[in-house]
Amino acid sequence: MARVYNFAAGPAMLPEEVLRQAAAEMLDYNGSGMSVMEMSHRSKEFGEIIATAEQDIRDLLSIPENYQVLFLQGGATLQFAGIPMNLMRNKVADYIVSGSWSKKAYKEAQLYGDAHLLASSEDGNFSYVPDVDAIEISPDADYVYICQNETIYGTRYNKLPDTKGKPLVADVSSCFLSEPMNIEDYGVMYGGVQKNIGPAGVTIVIVRDDLIYEDPLPFTPTLMRYSAQVKGKSMHNTPPAYGIYICGLVFKWLKAQGGLEAMKKRNEEKAAILYDFLDQSKLFKGTARKEDRSIMNVPFVTGSDDLDALFVAEAKSHNIVSIKGHRSVGGMRASIYNAMPKEGVEALVAYMAEFEKDHS
Amino acid sequence: MARVYNFAAGPAMLPEEVLRQAAAEMLDYNGSGMSVMEMSHRSKEFGEIIATAEQDIRDLLSIPENYQVLFLQGGATLQFAGIPMNLMRNKVADYIVSGSWSKKAYKEAQLYGDAHLLASSEDGNFSYVPDVDAIEISPDADYVYICQNETIYGTRYNKLPDTKGKPLVADVSSCFLSEPMNIEDYGVMYGGVQKNIGPAGVTIVIVRDDLIYEDPLPFTPTLMRYSAQVKGKSMHNTPPAYGIYICGLVFKWLKAQGGLEAMKKRNEEKAAILYDFLDQSKLFKGTARKEDRSIMNVPFVTGSDDLDALFVAEAKSHNIVSIKGHRSVGGMRASIYNAMPKEGVEALVAYMAEFEKDHS
Repeated sequence: MARVYNFAAGPAMLPEEVLRQAAAEMLDYNGSGMSVMEMSHRSKEFGEIIATAEQDIRDLLSIPENYQVLFLQGGATLQFAGIPMNLMRNKVADYIVSGSWSKKAYKEAQLYGDAHLLASSEDGNFSYVPDVDAIEISPDADYVYICQNETIYGTRYNKLPDTKGKPLVADVSSCFLSEPMNIEDYGVMYGGVQKNIGPAGVTIVIVRDDLIYEDPLPFTPTLMRYSAQVKGKSMHNTPPAYGIYICGLVFKWLKAQGGLEAMKKRNEEKAAILYDFLDQSKLFKGTARKEDRSIMNVPFVTGSDDLDALFVAEAKSHNIVSIKGHRSVGGMRASIYNAMPKEGVEALVAYMAEFEKDHS
Repeated sequence: MARVYNFAAGPAMLPEEVLRQAAAEMLDYNGSGMSVMEMSHRSKEFGEIIATAEQDIRDLLSIPENYQVLFLQGGATLQFAGIPMNLMRNKVADYIVSGSWSKKAYKEAQLYGDAHLLASSEDGNFSYVPDVDAIEISPDADYVYICQNETIYGTRYNKLPDTKGKPLVADVSSCFLSEPMNIEDYGVMYGGVQKNIGPAGVTIVIVRDDLIYEDPLPFTPTLMRYSAQVKGKSMHNTPPAYGIYICGLVFKWLKAQGGLEAMKKRNEEKAAILYDFLDQSKLFKGTARKEDRSIMNVPFVTGSDDLDALFVAEAKSHNIVSIKGHRSVGGMRASIYNAMPKEGVEALVAYMAEFEKDHS
């Protein structure tokens, strides 16, 4: 079978060049006589792989020297606990809830201290990002938390909240490396890599030096302490080495594509193809508020559950897979991360146009 | 370059057949048109991969139905915290320390309650397993903890401690699936897979139903709660999917080799080749007490730091890599896990014999 256009929300498509290189190096990485999977994480070869990966993501995001880059495990979900464990000095934090993921993070933080709900868009089934202009930050908040792009509802912050000097903590799992970001706007930026960067099982945490404490909450597992992971250079224990290697190949691919400015342009073009179609369609409509639309995740519906189901069922014959929407929104969702080619989005829109013609 | 004999302690050699299959399936798994790395963990395809992997390890170890099998993240090190968080009902546990890994686990448990040191072999630089026959268990101990095979010092328990009815918790990272084990002897058996089973980033936990509590210690991250992971069938969040897929291929390979009885025979043969040589050598000697010798990790020395360094330096030209010992023991260490062929051990012994002849 040919490669398919995979619109999954994550794990998701990876660049074909990266997969080809990984396959070619599977039995013998760079003359070492072994796979990266078999390599001691203390070896010279793996030391170069992880150091190069770190340098490349630093280059891509222009990460300042006073930020540490950590390659960890456990996904965003483990960071939902790790963030408060590491940062809750006053045991107070402010959460803005714009979807399922920020809501889960908010709920988990309540295990560790006084997590305030600053704003929520749950009243509108998370179809928009709460207005954050007039937001009042708790005077003793250790941080303000957002999920910058909500995968399920297809919204994103087009403007970051003014945290009045408190550290901003952002889960960027579903928009990681999709466009340039100003790292200095953040205290902590983190995300699982399985959407835009690599295979599930690696979590990248970018944390400012002054937020790395030697004394996090006392029951914080050593592996979850940023201080321990900084000291061990992401190797306090055996890291998810093969996943880090694949991330490194993707970083090289992103550089070869022209870096994050080029990716932003490409991603905006891809999203525009889909949104332009949705905005003129008489059958399909997007579910997120226009001004908060994500360029990574595009949920849409026909208004008829039966037609939605038919659209999903017949997609496979158009080489389109994993287009079904999340159960909390219904309908369809197209996740169009970095590795989704423009041709994939064009194929989807062609199928939508054909489907609309057949069912109107 | 040809494939090498890689004696690394972990990550370590994987069966070449498994690597070949992974490479062949990298761009298109089983006609899906995508890599396992790109596959939604909620897809039918991945559902089959993880269910088959679970069934295969259940078959290999004859795991009874009242034990759950979890595929988690974070390595043994995260379980050093996870074990007490999940099991310390009375906040008391007994630890037997026979090497670096059980010592780390013991230290981490002190964050969560009253971790007792039942016995330690640190006085002998962990060259033996503490005598556990006359051991007195704390009456209110929630569990008794051991590391069954200590990777660094090359020792193993040839007889499990009598825990007087308390649950036995064992880190089996470096002897996992190397021979049959009686699961009913354990309350929890767990290990990182990166030695005997697969790529770093997957931790397998086998836990008895009555030890899965809905109310672990209150600050336990949701992802670390056995109850949440059982409920989510190891998919409370996105699992380390590609690593689980490779583990599944290794399980199939183990079955094809004849299962764990056959592996035990093979591993004992391999270890005997090396130990028989050591026992007659006038230059090399093993560092672990004879009756506690591991069949997975074999540390040895010449008695001269210079000769040790020379032996390590010249090994590469014999196609032998990662033979250097851990800094806490010095000398050499040969890790001879399931995937190390007998020919690799024979090549090592031939090199040792040649080296001994040249330097005596």
